[in-house]
Formats: sequence, structure tokens, C-alpha cells
Amino acid sequence: MENTINEQTTHQVITPEQFLEHYQGHRRLTRKVIEAFPEKEFFNYSVGGMRPFSEMVKELFAIAVPGLTEIVSENTSEFDEHRDYGTTKAEFLQKWDQDTDEINTLWKQISVERFQEVIKLFGQYEGTVLSNLQYFVDNEIHHRGQGYVYLRALDIEPPFFYDRS
Amino acid sequence: MENTINEQTTHQVITPEQFLEHYQGHRRLTRKVIEAFPEKEFFNYSVGGMRPFSEMVKELFAIAVPGLTEIVSENTSEFDEHRDYGTTKAEFLQKWDQDTDEINTLWKQISVERFQEVIKLFGQYEGTVLSNLQYFVDNEIHHRGQGYVYLRALDIEPPFFYDRS
Repeated sequence: MENTINEQTTHQVITPEQFLEHYQGHRRLTRKVIEAFPEKEFFNYSVGGMRPFSEMVKELFAIAVPGLTEIVSENTSEFDEHRDYGTTKAEFLQKWDQDTDEINTLWKQISVERFQEVIKLFGQYEGTVLSNLQYFVDNEIHHRGQGYVYLRALDIEPPFFYDRS
Repeated sequence: MENTINEQTTHQVITPEQFLEHYQGHRRLTRKVIEAFPEKEFFNYSVGGMRPFSEMVKELFAIAVPGLTEIVSENTSEFDEHRDYGTTKAEFLQKWDQDTDEINTLWKQISVERFQEVIKLFGQYEGTVLSNLQYFVDNEIHHRGQGYVYLRALDIEPPFFYDRS
């Protein structure tokens, strides 16, 4: 598998490994945004009647590992963005870091041939594995951008958008 | 060229054509967000001391066609997000639609082999053609997510995130 991918590297727009690193880079930035929120405001603050950032993070949790588990196992599961992850930022960050490892493990089980396969994620989102994985990343960027506005409105400087370290 | 790409399709994580369609799908959504803003608020409204949405769109204009022109021509140009595109939403939307066509024309001139090539965009952003193009899309999603908060704070319902029609 490794060899197959490497041999194709010069003709790949993006390799599965690069896609994973791109996703994890964005996840590192989102982690910094969680850290930047004051404890209370992470759970209570919002603008324009929207959800607090903790609720958006719950949505990200509901997508990442459950979605990848379904792609790898090919067993349909229920989408549930209201699971309980605790009441402190520390608990959310611990879950975040667990997911980082699980995402790495699961991603490596998706062969390059599967990205163009059509699936119906959570029994409802029909599209290629590729388009579903792109949605995981895009949706995280979208909500994190909203978190940036919350931080600015709280007079807190968000991390640089290009910092994926 | 067309044949080369098509023969590889089953083993491509994403083809250049799919990447372009993904980008244009996001651009169609951003266009809906521009349309959703009231005329005055597009240029004047913001939250948390941030830029109005029109200024973010100017940044998107400064990246998309100038960036692709540089990738295709391999001539370095200056990054300038303060160009004048007029003072009405209609003028911004006209520029948006012109760019849609130009992006299609330019993108088709980037061969699949070039995505892994290292460049220094605008003389300063070093990375692969791939990582630069990913930045174009990600940066647009990021700022558009901020535009969603502005709309919500203005009591305006933004378009559905998944609507790329």
C-alpha cells in the first residue's frame, strides 16, 4: 500500500497522507481556538443567537471519529451531536487529543481506491468518501471561523489562521 | 492531458476537475452570502472590531485570479487586497462572476503533475501548488463563516452551508 501510493506521488493531486496531515493541521488550529476561550464563555457565550463554541465542538466530535469509523467498518451509525463530553474545557481537550490518535489510526485504513467510492454516511449523506471527508474539514473551518468572531467580540486575539503547528 | 487524467481517475484521491468543482461550489455559496447582506451592511457592518464582509471579499479577489494567474504564468506578482472594485454589491457580484469564468480558464491550464511542485506565491507563500490552492478554499470558508455570524447578528438567515448549487 505504502509503495503503491509513493510510486504515484508525482501524479497525485493529493495523497491520502497529505490529506490527513491537512486535516490534522486544521484540527491543531481548532484546538488552539478552544484553548483561547475563557472557561465560562466556551460553554455560554455566543453572538447573534447562535450556539456557544462548545456546541460546535460537539458537532465536530460527532462527525470525525464516528464518521471515519463508519467509512472504515462500512457499518452505518446514527449521527448524534448531543453526546456528553463533560462540563470543562479540560475534558473537551482530552477528548480532542484522543480523537487525534483515533483519526490517524482510522485514516490509514482507508485505501486510496476508496476515496472515489460512493457511500451514504450516517445513513443520510450520500457522496463519495472524498466529498464526505472534505465536508469534515470544511465544516470545521466554517465553525472555527465563527469561533474567531466570538473571540474578537470577547476582545481576545485568536490564533493566526495559517498557524497549523 | 485529458486522457492521462481520466485513466488515473480510479486511483486519484481527487482529480484536478473535482478540486475545481469543489472550489466553485464554495464560491457559489460565498456569492449567496454576499447577496444575503443588505447593501449598506455589506460595506459597513462588522462584529468585534473586525472588517466588514466587503473587505474580506476584497481579500478573496486578491487571492483567486491573481494567485492562479501567477501559478499558470510562473510570473511573481504583488499581493494587494486593497484594490477598488466599486461601491455597490452589484459591482462586487459582477467582479465575482467574471472571476468564476477566469478561474475555470486558468485552472484547466494547471497539469496534474504541477500540484506537488513547490512555488513561492506572491513572492512570499512557499509551499506546493496544492497547499496554496487548499489555502485559497480554506481561507474563503474561514471568512465566509465569519460572514455568517454577521448575518445572524443582523437577524438575517444565512444560506445552508451544504448548499453549493
